[in-house]
Amino acid sequence: MISQTTEYALRAVVWLAANPEKPLTAQQIAVATRVPAGYLAKVLQGLSRAGLLHSQRGLGGGFTLERSPNSLTMWEVVQAVDPLKRIRECPLGFDAHKNTLCPLHEQLDFAIATIEKMFTACKISKLIDPEHPCSPLCASVPKAKATGNSKRGKR
Amino acid sequence: MISQTTEYALRAVVWLAANPEKPLTAQQIAVATRVPAGYLAKVLQGLSRAGLLHSQRGLGGGFTLERSPNSLTMWEVVQAVDPLKRIRECPLGFDAHKNTLCPLHEQLDFAIATIEKMFTACKISKLIDPEHPCSPLCASVPKAKATGNSKRGKR
Repeated sequence: MISQTTEYALRAVVWLAANPEKPLTAQQIAVATRVPAGYLAKVLQGLSRAGLLHSQRGLGGGFTLERSPNSLTMWEVVQAVDPLKRIRECPLGFDAHKNTLCPLHEQLDFAIATIEKMFTACKISKLIDPEHPCSPLCASVPKAKATGNSKRGKR
Repeated sequence: MISQTTEYALRAVVWLAANPEKPLTAQQIAVATRVPAGYLAKVLQGLSRAGLLHSQRGLGGGFTLERSPNSLTMWEVVQAVDPLKRIRECPLGFDAHKNTLCPLHEQLDFAIATIEKMFTACKISKLIDPEHPCSPLCASVPKAKATGNSKRGKR
């Protein structure tokens, strides 16, 4: 449903959001997110072209998020790399369906609209929630737990 | 979000459901659904293998639905040809995420679960509703309107 490219883009964005201290190289992001380096390079290019990442060349350079995780949504990331397209007109090209889709395409479009709504409501900051029992894309315990300030406490 | 293969499969199933009088050949379905014949042949094979279609060889042969449109769901058709897969375990393979997905994969799985629920609730019979203002996959006016028994009346 969500393409591999989109899933990789979300991993990269989440990792950058969770590690904002300094720019990260493509290689560092590839290792952390377990995405093949060549594939990730293209994904990062796409995100940069869409204005979601800032890339800085040279020593100490790398990628940073161009937007705050509090304002950037999952939907924007999806649409930047492999957009989900709403069904605005009859895919069969029938003139009679110009203003009203048939029940099949109405239902399919409703499904896409539901995902659009869901991902638009989900900010990237929600995906790096330190209170969540599982750290984003990371094999270690959550930051909140590690520093002992988790509301959930240790388990 | 929904693959081309899945969308073609749904078109074929809807067309067969709307035209149950006699078996339809692959060529007849291809013309009606505006799907390239070669592509559709593979889709029909997939649907047959999954037990959703019955195919009958010879003169007067063709495809019919194996199940009633009142019991067959959109989800079953999707899963028969190009299944949407729930995220049951960490795609990065982290041991620490075995029992709890990270927020990103939790969110992605929730999206897939939502579509699963939506398509499971949608029977194929709903997609050939004669009261709908738009006939399924057909450039003509709805049957209900044509016979003058639509609750919506003529527009």
